[in-house]
Amino acid sequence: MKLTILGCYAATPRTFTNPTSQVLEIRNRLFLIDCGEGTQVQLRKNKIKFSKINHVFISHLHGDHFFGLIGLISTFALLGRTNDLHIYGPKGIKEIINLQLRLSNSWTKYGLFFHELESKESEVVFEDDKVIVKTIPLNHRVYTNGFLFQEKIRERKLNLDAVQNFEIDKCYYQNIKNGKDITLDDGKVIENYKLTFDPIAPMSYAFCSDTAYDESIILDSEEALAGKTMHSTAKEAATIASKASVKQLVLGHYSTRYDSLELFKKQAETIFSNILLADDGKSFEF
Amino acid sequence: MKLTILGCYAATPRTFTNPTSQVLEIRNRLFLIDCGEGTQVQLRKNKIKFSKINHVFISHLHGDHFFGLIGLISTFALLGRTNDLHIYGPKGIKEIINLQLRLSNSWTKYGLFFHELESKESEVVFEDDKVIVKTIPLNHRVYTNGFLFQEKIRERKLNLDAVQNFEIDKCYYQNIKNGKDITLDDGKVIENYKLTFDPIAPMSYAFCSDTAYDESIILDSEEALAGKTMHSTAKEAATIASKASVKQLVLGHYSTRYDSLELFKKQAETIFSNILLADDGKSFEF
Repeated sequence: MKLTILGCYAATPRTFTNPTSQVLEIRNRLFLIDCGEGTQVQLRKNKIKFSKINHVFISHLHGDHFFGLIGLISTFALLGRTNDLHIYGPKGIKEIINLQLRLSNSWTKYGLFFHELESKESEVVFEDDKVIVKTIPLNHRVYTNGFLFQEKIRERKLNLDAVQNFEIDKCYYQNIKNGKDITLDDGKVIENYKLTFDPIAPMSYAFCSDTAYDESIILDSEEALAGKTMHSTAKEAATIASKASVKQLVLGHYSTRYDSLELFKKQAETIFSNILLADDGKSFEF
Repeated sequence: MKLTILGCYAATPRTFTNPTSQVLEIRNRLFLIDCGEGTQVQLRKNKIKFSKINHVFISHLHGDHFFGLIGLISTFALLGRTNDLHIYGPKGIKEIINLQLRLSNSWTKYGLFFHELESKESEVVFEDDKVIVKTIPLNHRVYTNGFLFQEKIRERKLNLDAVQNFEIDKCYYQNIKNGKDITLDDGKVIENYKLTFDPIAPMSYAFCSDTAYDESIILDSEEALAGKTMHSTAKEAATIASKASVKQLVLGHYSTRYDSLELFKKQAETIFSNILLADDGKSFEF
């Protein structure tokens, strides 16, 4: 899992900072999370292929989180994109984008699908064989969601020595990896745990953008790796991370008022020890 | 008169180029012309004071000419701007901006005035005591205007030796500067040209963005200084400049397909000799 921070600052951009946008690579899928003004340029600078982005998640309709979306959609069209693009965001986002495409008389030739969100309960917004994405309803001035990106549990790892010792035919290997017990020709049942090792634990990334302090956003998954971005203080973020038993907290949505980010880290570390500081252009591999 | 190029490239931004935006300073007034994505950052980089921008002219609703406007308007609001902002642009621009302000629940506290354009004839869109701005209807895929920024004729310069020789009282000086003749106490009339020098010739700047070749856009003012930006070829721009008897042509809207701009200049110079090449961050003083 790789997280690339394209921008992590709030609005009123300065010369060298960018509003919010992140790219999460998980099980070979790329998810774009928020899309502040200038995101398309940040994607270029970070050498992320436009064609690999098929899903864009918008947390809320404040400018520093979505003003770059129309530019990205237009550029995809100008570059002759053909594969579908899916946008997940608050109700209204479709009207904003379509109005601008209509008035500029420049419709996309690729499929542009809007998945508008308005529920105040967590819901599954994306799912395939390897990844599931759920909303995390947040508490902000306008309707806002965080997003929880979860790897699905991988198949179990075959214990090659064990299956050879039991002389199990290769055609059963996939069943074993799927967790099934095996009945030998003599009727003896070999339990799965004797034939396999545990798979790598699935990872999760929770993007929690602008929110006031609110314990109800705590994740119930023990394996969760939480990213918490502010409007709450760094300390509050750390408190949520601690209560949610996450393994790692990435602080990453700063007001442009502050020149040094180290203070945020120090504040948060009084509550929770495993803290990373996001910054524009930084990547984290987990 | 000073022209600062914030960006002069068409859409599909590359890492180090910016879509169209220019700042024209004329008689101590600042006019922002077009506002592609990232314009607010370009304004910062070029150290142009946000508070001095009170009038924004948008040529047409293609993204590379206006996607940065909503961000600029929002940033002005976040910074606590109080003075009015006037936007001149094609019909529809008000709906685009207001929809986004409404959905993000972030209205401006300053006066935001839209002057929506839909005429196919040239019209005066701004006028004060020193400057007048007219539209130049252009021929593009969507409704498009160029803009002609004209200094008004300045007052005549007093010939101090002459007025002293004729012993004219100072209270008549303003009338003389305004071009009036003077009747002396003995009834003798002194014609104005004997008391004054010609003022500096007024300058004009014509911003002609995306247009096909079209002679009808030629300006009738002899003193015009034309800026012609493309979609027509550089040669066509030079032909228009030549037929319009402008003094200087600034080429300045390039497709991102081209790596070198010198070729544009060479092409245009086969038709018209006085050519400047715009580039992001360049300023021209006239």
